[in-house]
Amino acid sequence: MDFANYFPIWNKLTPAHKERLTNAAELLKSKSGTVVHNGSMDCLGLLLIRKGQLRVYTLSSEGREITLYRLFEHDICLFSASCVMPNIQFEVIIEAEKDSEMWVLPSCLFKDLMEESAVVANYANQLISSRFSDVMWLMEQIMWKSFDKRLAAFLLEESVLEGTTALKITHEKIANHMGTAREVVTRMLRYFQSEGMVKLTRGAVEILDEDKLEALAE
Amino acid sequence: MDFANYFPIWNKLTPAHKERLTNAAELLKSKSGTVVHNGSMDCLGLLLIRKGQLRVYTLSSEGREITLYRLFEHDICLFSASCVMPNIQFEVIIEAEKDSEMWVLPSCLFKDLMEESAVVANYANQLISSRFSDVMWLMEQIMWKSFDKRLAAFLLEESVLEGTTALKITHEKIANHMGTAREVVTRMLRYFQSEGMVKLTRGAVEILDEDKLEALAE
Repeated sequence: MDFANYFPIWNKLTPAHKERLTNAAELLKSKSGTVVHNGSMDCLGLLLIRKGQLRVYTLSSEGREITLYRLFEHDICLFSASCVMPNIQFEVIIEAEKDSEMWVLPSCLFKDLMEESAVVANYANQLISSRFSDVMWLMEQIMWKSFDKRLAAFLLEESVLEGTTALKITHEKIANHMGTAREVVTRMLRYFQSEGMVKLTRGAVEILDEDKLEALAE
Repeated sequence: MDFANYFPIWNKLTPAHKERLTNAAELLKSKSGTVVHNGSMDCLGLLLIRKGQLRVYTLSSEGREITLYRLFEHDICLFSASCVMPNIQFEVIIEAEKDSEMWVLPSCLFKDLMEESAVVANYANQLISSRFSDVMWLMEQIMWKSFDKRLAAFLLEESVLEGTTALKITHEKIANHMGTAREVVTRMLRYFQSEGMVKLTRGAVEILDEDKLEALAE
């Protein structure tokens, strides 16, 4: 079954576990813009990303967003099964940023496997550690890095992900990724424009001077 | 052995694992102000706090600090054994804030146990999830809460930990806990003083109006 290729510990599993996973796994397709998982309201299961791009973010009580990390092909999403981990006391929202396909392994099955198999439990451990490292990296950026450097890095990252220097993205959307207000983004983008680094048009940001942006982002 | 009382999964371990732990565990005493673990420079092992108080913090490249969380009696510290978790890609410093005693379980033994036992691996999982939740909570505070509210909450927390409203703490130290500059702390404390919430003296902050601070912190 194709999904075995997306589960890095497949070869370390027992034949019985492999069979249970094979029987339970289902392919889920999500259109770009769809919310795949919403906080504690659901507990879909472990997601093995077959293709596409997902964004994992949190929401403040006032509705402000910040992107924690993104998931790509071959990544595994644990927080869509966070109900099986009693000590996870925060909520995230997972949204398809591009048309995506993923294998879903039901939460209850994953919980059983974690309890029965040290291999699976240690693998879950590695997944949490990776995401924890992502969030620590983000927190250090927020704490110690000025907003101009963060915005420069964000534009360069988007450009790599989209494969173009002409980014179709609104200031509002950038603000939601970075956990700030739209006005703050607009002000900084205008400064970037005045420095010749970008060109702003309606609903789009074009990168003109990649080197200068890179130097700014460090 | 006394340390079994500090290891929540003790009763779920095999006799062989209990014996290996009993033989390997050592009691470590650290004076207040001592660094117990410093980033990737060492990998002491799992710490079971017998008494005292530890502070876990990170350092920016410019030497600024922010407290991630604290550990108290009966807490378990995993990051002093982070070398056994390959996906932890950040460094923390652990410092005794009060005279402390802790059982040390060597990293290599803990690694073996995680690989051999689903119970131990799942327990490590829970520990990471708890700390991850602490850091997410902190990040949300930093992102969405204004500094006056955070400072009010910090002073109230300190007052509970120290069992007094007369806090012997410098503005510099508060800044290191909160990841900000000393001047920012001093300015806000002076505002708190002008509002009658605290009284400032050299190296000390006295809480005068707990209710008002609590209302501010929410």
